[in-house]
Amino acid sequence: MTVITLTTDFGSLYPASMKGVILSIDPDATIIDVTHSIPPADIRAGAFALYSIVRHFPPGTIHVGVIDPGVGTERSAIVVCAGGQYFIGPDNGLLIPAAKMLGDIEVYEISDGVIAEEISSTFHGRDVFAPVAAHLSKGKDVRELGYIKDDYVDLDFSGYAIEEEFIEASVIYVDDFGNIVTNIPQEEILKKIGKDTVLSISGRHMPFLKTYGEVARGTLISLIGSHGFFEIAMNQGNASDLLHLNNGNEIRIGIIEGH
Amino acid sequence: MTVITLTTDFGSLYPASMKGVILSIDPDATIIDVTHSIPPADIRAGAFALYSIVRHFPPGTIHVGVIDPGVGTERSAIVVCAGGQYFIGPDNGLLIPAAKMLGDIEVYEISDGVIAEEISSTFHGRDVFAPVAAHLSKGKDVRELGYIKDDYVDLDFSGYAIEEEFIEASVIYVDDFGNIVTNIPQEEILKKIGKDTVLSISGRHMPFLKTYGEVARGTLISLIGSHGFFEIAMNQGNASDLLHLNNGNEIRIGIIEGH
Amino acid sequence: MTVITLTTDFGSLYPASMKGVILSIDPDATIIDVTHSIPPADIRAGAFALYSIVRHFPPGTIHVGVIDPGVGTERSAIVVCAGGQYFIGPDNGLLIPAAKMLGDIEVYEISDGVIAEEISSTFHGRDVFAPVAAHLSKGKDVRELGYIKDDYVDLDFSGYAIEEEFIEASVIYVDDFGNIVTNIPQEEILKKIGKDTVLSISGRHMPFLKTYGEVARGTLISLIGSHGFFEIAMNQGNASDLLHLNNGNEIRIGIIEGH
Repeated sequence: MTVITLTTDFGSLYPASMKGVILSIDPDATIIDVTHSIPPADIRAGAFALYSIVRHFPPGTIHVGVIDPGVGTERSAIVVCAGGQYFIGPDNGLLIPAAKMLGDIEVYEISDGVIAEEISSTFHGRDVFAPVAAHLSKGKDVRELGYIKDDYVDLDFSGYAIEEEFIEASVIYVDDFGNIVTNIPQEEILKKIGKDTVLSISGRHMPFLKTYGEVARGTLISLIGSHGFFEIAMNQGNASDLLHLNNGNEIRIGIIEGH
Repeated sequence: MTVITLTTDFGSLYPASMKGVILSIDPDATIIDVTHSIPPADIRAGAFALYSIVRHFPPGTIHVGVIDPGVGTERSAIVVCAGGQYFIGPDNGLLIPAAKMLGDIEVYEISDGVIAEEISSTFHGRDVFAPVAAHLSKGKDVRELGYIKDDYVDLDFSGYAIEEEFIEASVIYVDDFGNIVTNIPQEEILKKIGKDTVLSISGRHMPFLKTYGEVARGTLISLIGSHGFFEIAMNQGNASDLLHLNNGNEIRIGIIEGH
Repeated sequence: MTVITLTTDFGSLYPASMKGVILSIDPDATIIDVTHSIPPADIRAGAFALYSIVRHFPPGTIHVGVIDPGVGTERSAIVVCAGGQYFIGPDNGLLIPAAKMLGDIEVYEISDGVIAEEISSTFHGRDVFAPVAAHLSKGKDVRELGYIKDDYVDLDFSGYAIEEEFIEASVIYVDDFGNIVTNIPQEEILKKIGKDTVLSISGRHMPFLKTYGEVARGTLISLIGSHGFFEIAMNQGNASDLLHLNNGNEIRIGIIEGH
């Protein structure tokens, strides 16, 4: 019984066809939705979603990711193997951070025609990635599906600066609470700030603490989120709405005191 | 291990009670959400959703559809058998296009009292359709549930015109990308237009191509969608928002050149 | 094969990590989403959601509820046992109404360190409640997880008045149709009003009937909802939008005639 996860920007309806295809091939698969609410075509947000969940899944899990603005064009379809898990999707960087978190990666390009069925031009999630996942789940060897690809599209969450008096970063993900996840990993931010630090953003002060309930309701706070990144939040409120910040935005945070 | 799918306009929460009822009767059922985001009472959109996914599910699948503005009134509850799959829901047309896609259909009216439990006036999804699905899944014969019904409510997606200089159609479904699915099947539209055709809608030109990535970001395009219908979309944008078109709207498309 | 349900205010993404954790410990668990759309930190709405679904689930079901504004602070984590089902979550009242519906309850405080893994300050759904659920599902005895707690946080849906000429109540839940669920149980309201009663709210009249389809489209109606509470709805429309009422609001309803 293999776990197959799905991460897409499809909203509702389309994921169901993928599930029908998977269950037609492997009726014993356990299918888990990671999210289908990635903003359309936001490859980096999708990569973050996969990255944030991957270490919680059991060995052998197969992750299908479909944030795929290039569907039906010349972009390749790939399978990435890392740490005993598999990642299937377009070759646009989406799968790479999650796979690399698990260790060394091997990337295979899925050969044309390896999946025999008719293939639409607009829905490879259903016509390519879902059947590949189900065949892997049934025990097919990844080497029967394609060939090693060395020139895959890479993606990482780098591009931030932690200076004496300010931090520059970008927003990697806004969750459904409106919490703003930045691209700064905890090990980097913790070199510079700690529990006495006061930060500022858009003219507002915010402490750096452990959890939301340590500040009053409606108050800004910064912390290390459960995904391991530096995050800006509001206790029982929506920081993204207040600060007008969304995925991809650049932010500048002042370091006021305590460092 | 039977697959039972759910298609409703319930949003969240209510589907969970249906799942509890199903698993109480058949713990081995595999339950798949098709969508719970059909616009309230939009029977035709729900019929399209079921129609678009049905051919991807394995033989024996049981589809429960509940877009049911008439719940608790005199409308019948039915089971439709077609091509080895089952469809359960209200007799309002919702289930018919999906069933007919699979071949000849047989419609059974579910008899009052065949499901022994107390029945609410407002939630037959939980009190009638879910238990019927689970009993079918456990092997009950559909003929024990009711009698053949010949005068069921029909529904199809017809009502379009493809003329020399224009196309008239209606919007059958807007997906979560804002792609506008019309009611014109691919085999009909392809008789008239092809890859050199330029179309116009609301004063804007759009090509007819294979996939979204063939036009620049933010550009309108028309194509055959993965569901087999003529579709209007915007590459990495929301065509529905731009054109102010939604389910049920009538549209008129000019055929400019290339036909 | 145990059923584990999830009820949270997480939106998408975070529930997937909980599912990965559960399936890593108990690959045979059947995981059901109740809802992840509870308004952030709205403990009473979450309690209603659990209450409304619990009697439809099979014996042995384990319900995980995470509406948890106090995560990482000193609030306790608890397991509640009632009627052969289990409830796991924060000690803030969330789990109590659902558990009490099933009969007498026993509350256990989960001991620190009983779940060995590293625990974040912000995501006990993933780091505490999900593993506890999976270990219970695998057969662990609840008495190995903690000790009986007598001073748990209670919560009920009381706080309404049914007088000769008016009703005062509060809104406990607004569903995705915009139906307004009040905190008045059916057995209380039925002592006072019946099928000839006409009610008024915000200057608008509404009948008290059995089901939505008994009034014209766009008309207000009051009824007993499928959850067993007095409800205000609009046939094929959104009563919450019309009346500007949401969770937690107090309402006053006039009893015009027929009582």
